[in-house]
Amino acid sequence: MTDALRLGVAGLGTVGCALIQLLARQNTLLEGRCGRPLSVTAVSARTRGRDRGISVDHLDWHDDPVALASADNIDVFVELIGGDSGPADLAVRAALKSGKHVVTANKALLAKHGGALARLAEENSVSLNFEAAVAGGIPIIKAMRESLAGNQVQRISGILNGTCNYILTRMEDDNLSFAECLDQAQQLGYAEADPTFDVEGFDTAHKLALLTSLAFGTQINSAQIYVEGISSITPQDIQAASELGYRIKLLGVAQKLATGIEQRVHPTMVPLEGHLAQISDVTNAVSIDADAVGNVTMSGPGAGGDATASAVLGDIVDIARGIMLPPLGISVADQTPYVKARMRAHEGGYYIRLTVSDRLGAFASIAGRMAEAGISLASIVQKNREGQPEVSNGPETKTVLLITHQTSESAIREALVHIRADGHIVGDPQLIRLEKA
Amino acid sequence: MTDALRLGVAGLGTVGCALIQLLARQNTLLEGRCGRPLSVTAVSARTRGRDRGISVDHLDWHDDPVALASADNIDVFVELIGGDSGPADLAVRAALKSGKHVVTANKALLAKHGGALARLAEENSVSLNFEAAVAGGIPIIKAMRESLAGNQVQRISGILNGTCNYILTRMEDDNLSFAECLDQAQQLGYAEADPTFDVEGFDTAHKLALLTSLAFGTQINSAQIYVEGISSITPQDIQAASELGYRIKLLGVAQKLATGIEQRVHPTMVPLEGHLAQISDVTNAVSIDADAVGNVTMSGPGAGGDATASAVLGDIVDIARGIMLPPLGISVADQTPYVKARMRAHEGGYYIRLTVSDRLGAFASIAGRMAEAGISLASIVQKNREGQPEVSNGPETKTVLLITHQTSESAIREALVHIRADGHIVGDPQLIRLEKA
Repeated sequence: MTDALRLGVAGLGTVGCALIQLLARQNTLLEGRCGRPLSVTAVSARTRGRDRGISVDHLDWHDDPVALASADNIDVFVELIGGDSGPADLAVRAALKSGKHVVTANKALLAKHGGALARLAEENSVSLNFEAAVAGGIPIIKAMRESLAGNQVQRISGILNGTCNYILTRMEDDNLSFAECLDQAQQLGYAEADPTFDVEGFDTAHKLALLTSLAFGTQINSAQIYVEGISSITPQDIQAASELGYRIKLLGVAQKLATGIEQRVHPTMVPLEGHLAQISDVTNAVSIDADAVGNVTMSGPGAGGDATASAVLGDIVDIARGIMLPPLGISVADQTPYVKARMRAHEGGYYIRLTVSDRLGAFASIAGRMAEAGISLASIVQKNREGQPEVSNGPETKTVLLITHQTSESAIREALVHIRADGHIVGDPQLIRLEKA
Repeated sequence: MTDALRLGVAGLGTVGCALIQLLARQNTLLEGRCGRPLSVTAVSARTRGRDRGISVDHLDWHDDPVALASADNIDVFVELIGGDSGPADLAVRAALKSGKHVVTANKALLAKHGGALARLAEENSVSLNFEAAVAGGIPIIKAMRESLAGNQVQRISGILNGTCNYILTRMEDDNLSFAECLDQAQQLGYAEADPTFDVEGFDTAHKLALLTSLAFGTQINSAQIYVEGISSITPQDIQAASELGYRIKLLGVAQKLATGIEQRVHPTMVPLEGHLAQISDVTNAVSIDADAVGNVTMSGPGAGGDATASAVLGDIVDIARGIMLPPLGISVADQTPYVKARMRAHEGGYYIRLTVSDRLGAFASIAGRMAEAGISLASIVQKNREGQPEVSNGPETKTVLLITHQTSESAIREALVHIRADGHIVGDPQLIRLEKA
């Protein structure tokens, strides 16, 4: 029998504890699959005494994850601390430098320092695996890095944040406001006390940055992603989407264009009959378009202790089996710089919701501005203030919903500047992009 | 630079030619991803002179794939010949014995000889990769063998045959008979001249047998699969399914039960709102339920030259990168024998369509027989002979559609034996199983 692979686990929250329990439960199975035992030898967390429902008394304890990272009795450092700097960053660097393989679920860390960490891993001939960092239990990193290695990816899009998808699902199913659903999500533990990071799209952006790098061989760049969250979505938008044959999802999309790579995160109207529209609650999904395979879509749990531990354990099994690849699919030295395709050059269909003064000629003026910008309209719906189709002389404002044919972001913005200036609309226009997948 | 990985490709049909073209197109990309070039050095096919749209003049030619398999100038033998015996089998064995890695898309061969071939690969310390053998471009083999290695799989179900899914989609969308849709599929090249293998479920069974072995660590057993095809499905069944909130799909299902493992292939009514119901035309999908990850579902093209070549190339890239695993996830020596769970013990819901004589007491007699067998009914629909809900005194027979609650296969069969014997029904009952996914 080959020697056991010795694991040091830093961070004993939900995922860390689920991982330790899973390793114990699948002990025999894993030994068969890896050809060697896997054993946790040391752990690190902030508070030693806390009741976690599992015993770690028989394991080496380190108060400092950096000390664990370079401990002599571990082969793999499993980073489940979180955060894009501080202890997680220091410990991962220490582990790589001391020749330990690293498995991490930390998308924030990788979105910020992934290139440097991957380079460190390559220099020290160790693995840096991060399946759990993107889309929880869905094996998307391995699919991109290995299974689809014979493909040129054209586009990748995904529902990558369970909190947002839960809120959008509840808004539609229960006809509630964003604030009410956020409150529900917080009570269920699906959203943090400060939900900004999730609901404003930043978490999705971090995950997208990693997928983009794997898909296109470019340096990770999470700073140049166009990001909009879901907090401005209203029940009226949700209902309008449904009536028009769409459903609103927060998507991360990376797409190769002639001028560069478009990376964007925003609420998106996806066709009701497509794959992504069917993904409800906290489930995640990723859809890949590539030249050889066509489209492959994968869905599964985006978070949760066991599902995340499943991904972490898959990475550990790879190491136990001697599988070692450049963390980002190709050597960091071979990556090309990320060239951003400008968001103003984005092309697609748009949903626009306007609150229009009920004045003679207001609608004609708006339609005129769209025509001037070269935007052709696929659908126009006019509603009275209560959001119902107009049946009689309405109140002082009306809601107008426009769906455009394919057009450019700059045309839309130009038209909206004029429409605002003309003074026929009240408040801000709502703009939601349409996507074919 | 490391030496090129030299490929010998046997079989220059759609997939073989697509693979050679793909290798040429992604040349630079692949070298970056593998850290070494991939190059086709030799090929084999039945007819040398045939116009294939690609030139193979610069490659070594072998009339005999067995000669290619052991040629000195190849490192990997790519078997795209097909068939569960004869040249494919001989050539794969020759390749493994002479220390060549093997990549194959041949499910029939593996379903029959997979255990022996995997053992040969292990003995000779070479890879035997077969991503393309199951579900075309969907990376399900790697997901099962690697990504989900930390899980105990409970159930795997899939739409694994594009021909059948195309026919069922057309039957529903165009309201046509099985025969008409089969004819269409043949004209489009989606079905063979002799379609038995696909439409009677045998192809699905072969793929299922491989998934079962990977999922449960058992010896491949394709002989003990319960198999029913789709040729008995009528437009009436398709319509009834839709009215009852279901859609009919040919599924392969493997499920771990207390008494053994159930392997079954049959038309199945799946809930309209579930993942699998959304999979249309020639697309395939696989859904895995496992203890840690929960449910993961993957969909993509089940066939086609480029999509299959994508999977073959993924396997080749693994070899180029030095990834080598036991072909069936664990060593063949560690596999457990396949223990079949008896189909009569299967539990689930059932749809039953009966043509009932329009006699007083006929329906009461049928309902009584169901009750005697302990079967409780979730839904009963009675229609006149034209398939429309009854509105007046009908003709001499009526169609009765029953949906049962959870019950056992043996109870259903017992009830049907009595119902036939009672003489109230005309012709054979139609029986379609329900599945929750």
